[in-house]
Amino acid sequence: MTTPLRLGIAGLGTVGTGVVKIVQRHAALLATRTGREIVITAVTARDRARDRGLRLGDYAWADSAVALATRDDVDVFVELVGGDCGPALDATRAAIAAGKDVVTANKAMLAHHGQTLAETAESAGRVIRFEAAVAGGIPVVKALTEGLAGNQMTRVMGVMNGTCNYILTRMESAGLPYAEVFREAADLGYLEADPNLDVGGIDAGHKLALLAAIAFGTRVDFASVTLEGIQRITIDDIHQAADMGYRIKLLGVAQMTGRGLEQRMTPCLVPAASPLGQLEGGTNMVVLEGDSVGQTVLRGAGAGMGPTASAVLSDIVDIARGTRLSTFGQPATTLAPAPPALAASPVPFYLRMTLQDKPGALAKIATVLGNAGISIDRMRQYDHPGPNAPVLIVTHKTSRDALDTAIKAMAGTGVLVGDPVALRIEEV
Amino acid sequence: MTTPLRLGIAGLGTVGTGVVKIVQRHAALLATRTGREIVITAVTARDRARDRGLRLGDYAWADSAVALATRDDVDVFVELVGGDCGPALDATRAAIAAGKDVVTANKAMLAHHGQTLAETAESAGRVIRFEAAVAGGIPVVKALTEGLAGNQMTRVMGVMNGTCNYILTRMESAGLPYAEVFREAADLGYLEADPNLDVGGIDAGHKLALLAAIAFGTRVDFASVTLEGIQRITIDDIHQAADMGYRIKLLGVAQMTGRGLEQRMTPCLVPAASPLGQLEGGTNMVVLEGDSVGQTVLRGAGAGMGPTASAVLSDIVDIARGTRLSTFGQPATTLAPAPPALAASPVPFYLRMTLQDKPGALAKIATVLGNAGISIDRMRQYDHPGPNAPVLIVTHKTSRDALDTAIKAMAGTGVLVGDPVALRIEEV
Repeated sequence: MTTPLRLGIAGLGTVGTGVVKIVQRHAALLATRTGREIVITAVTARDRARDRGLRLGDYAWADSAVALATRDDVDVFVELVGGDCGPALDATRAAIAAGKDVVTANKAMLAHHGQTLAETAESAGRVIRFEAAVAGGIPVVKALTEGLAGNQMTRVMGVMNGTCNYILTRMESAGLPYAEVFREAADLGYLEADPNLDVGGIDAGHKLALLAAIAFGTRVDFASVTLEGIQRITIDDIHQAADMGYRIKLLGVAQMTGRGLEQRMTPCLVPAASPLGQLEGGTNMVVLEGDSVGQTVLRGAGAGMGPTASAVLSDIVDIARGTRLSTFGQPATTLAPAPPALAASPVPFYLRMTLQDKPGALAKIATVLGNAGISIDRMRQYDHPGPNAPVLIVTHKTSRDALDTAIKAMAGTGVLVGDPVALRIEEV
Repeated sequence: MTTPLRLGIAGLGTVGTGVVKIVQRHAALLATRTGREIVITAVTARDRARDRGLRLGDYAWADSAVALATRDDVDVFVELVGGDCGPALDATRAAIAAGKDVVTANKAMLAHHGQTLAETAESAGRVIRFEAAVAGGIPVVKALTEGLAGNQMTRVMGVMNGTCNYILTRMESAGLPYAEVFREAADLGYLEADPNLDVGGIDAGHKLALLAAIAFGTRVDFASVTLEGIQRITIDDIHQAADMGYRIKLLGVAQMTGRGLEQRMTPCLVPAASPLGQLEGGTNMVVLEGDSVGQTVLRGAGAGMGPTASAVLSDIVDIARGTRLSTFGQPATTLAPAPPALAASPVPFYLRMTLQDKPGALAKIATVLGNAGISIDRMRQYDHPGPNAPVLIVTHKTSRDALDTAIKAMAGTGVLVGDPVALRIEEV
């Protein structure tokens, strides 16, 4: 057995606590599997005094993440601080400069700084691993980077924010409005400090951008992800979708097209009977499609102490075993900048809007759609108590471009109240 | 870029052909991902003359698998010959003795000789990799060995023989009897040369035994897998199961219990609405449960040229990248022999039998069950044209032991025609 692998853990929140617990509980198992002891030598967190129910007495306490990252007795800097910049980024850079490998769960940091961090680490001969940053306990980064490495990937899809999926499935099962379930989720501690990271699709968008970089050998380009949150989804939308055999999911799709890299994280209607449609609560699902393997689907816990710590440990075990990979599966310097492309393939859309309840309003909308070359599959105006009429339209296949043009023209009719909600219907 | 990684491929059937195609088509992609060229230097197959639609002219032709395995210009011996002994085993041993790494899709060979092969390879500093041996294109060996390496695994389950699942789902969808669908599967080339490997559950049992060894750190013990094939499943069973909200699957389960290692590959009733219940055709699904990660589910193509070749390539890519793992995720010498344990947890059973159509027959069977302490949830005697009466019984939870005792006692009643079919009802 070689020398122990020494971890410095920055951040002792839910995930950090989980990592410490596994390292302590499974010391013998990990040593057998890796051929060396895995030990924690030092930790740091914002609040030293807080009781986390952990034995921390054997570990040195560092005054800051940067101080931890540069300690001589640390081989692997485990970054569980979070945040796209600030201490997490400073300490990660410091760790690489000090010759440490890095394991992180920080999707925001990598979505924004992954390219430069990877280049720096690789030129220094260090690795950055981030299994825990995408889809919690599901070993999807490994599946994509290694397990499907013989494939030209064609598409990556997924439901990768458990909080959004919890909100959407809870709205449906309990028949509660968005605002109420949002409050529930907040009370349960499911939401990020800035909830817009969750419900705005940003967190899931970070994850999609990281997977796209690996899948297509391109530079992480989070800025080009088409992002749309779930904040405007109503219980009516969910019921209407269910009536038609669909469920609404915050769905990420990344694919390389002739026009460039398409990346979007938006609420979509998916068939209720499909695996994605059946995903309940905080569970995540990632669909990986390659030219040889076809479709491979992974499902599991997308968050939580145990699952996320499990993912952190898989990276640590790899390093202990001597496995050394480029951050995104190929040298960062070979990652190509890909021109961003908007989704172009025509699909049916679900369109919900509110019209002034006056004669000819619906006809005006129908005319606008007809003029834009969009044909209507079904249209329904539902019962309404107030002065305005909620209208649901399902289009035949059309492009998002044509639809956006039509939506702009609708505004000119003067019959529209507020902005329509337009959701893709994906036959996944 | 370092020196090329040189492959010798033994076996140019479906999988071998697929591997050659990927290596040729994705040469640049593979070189970018691994940092070195991956080249084929030599091949061998039974029939040299056969046209496989491949460019093979650049490769040396070896006269035998052993000759290929020991060539100086081969770094990795890719064993796609098949068979638990004979040329595959001889050549694998020869390759290790000659200092080669081995990539194989051969579940039978590893199920029977995995322990000694792994010990030999590891003492020689060579690796044996076998992603393609389990669940086709699904990177499940990697997920278990690496992605969930921070977990004490609690249970591994799966539908891992696509041919059986094809037969069972086709019987249901087309309303055809077993014998007819079996012939269809044979005509489609879905069956192994010895079809009992498929429909007898042996092939899937091999796979389960390999996963169990990794999951629980035990020596591969295929001989202790409780095996039951699908040959006795009738279209009536499928319809009866469907009526109760279940589907019949050839389901593998491995778990470590206080009494020892439980491994079984048997037809079971699973809820029709569960992910396992919804698995159609040749698709495979593996469920991995660990103490930290909870339940992780992987689904994908379980066989076929592209998917299986994709799995072979993942092992080759790992070797090209310098990743070196113990065959079963920990040194073979540390794998523990585990006492085999039969399934003990009580579950409901589906019991189908044929009784002589005479007064009191059913009462005798009911009495036997009652005497064995097995209570009946439902019982049904269906319409029958002939002299014998088909009877279906669903029991309340009971142990397999108690049920086997009762089935033996039933034989003594003199009213039973043939042997009953008993299937576990699993709430997966």
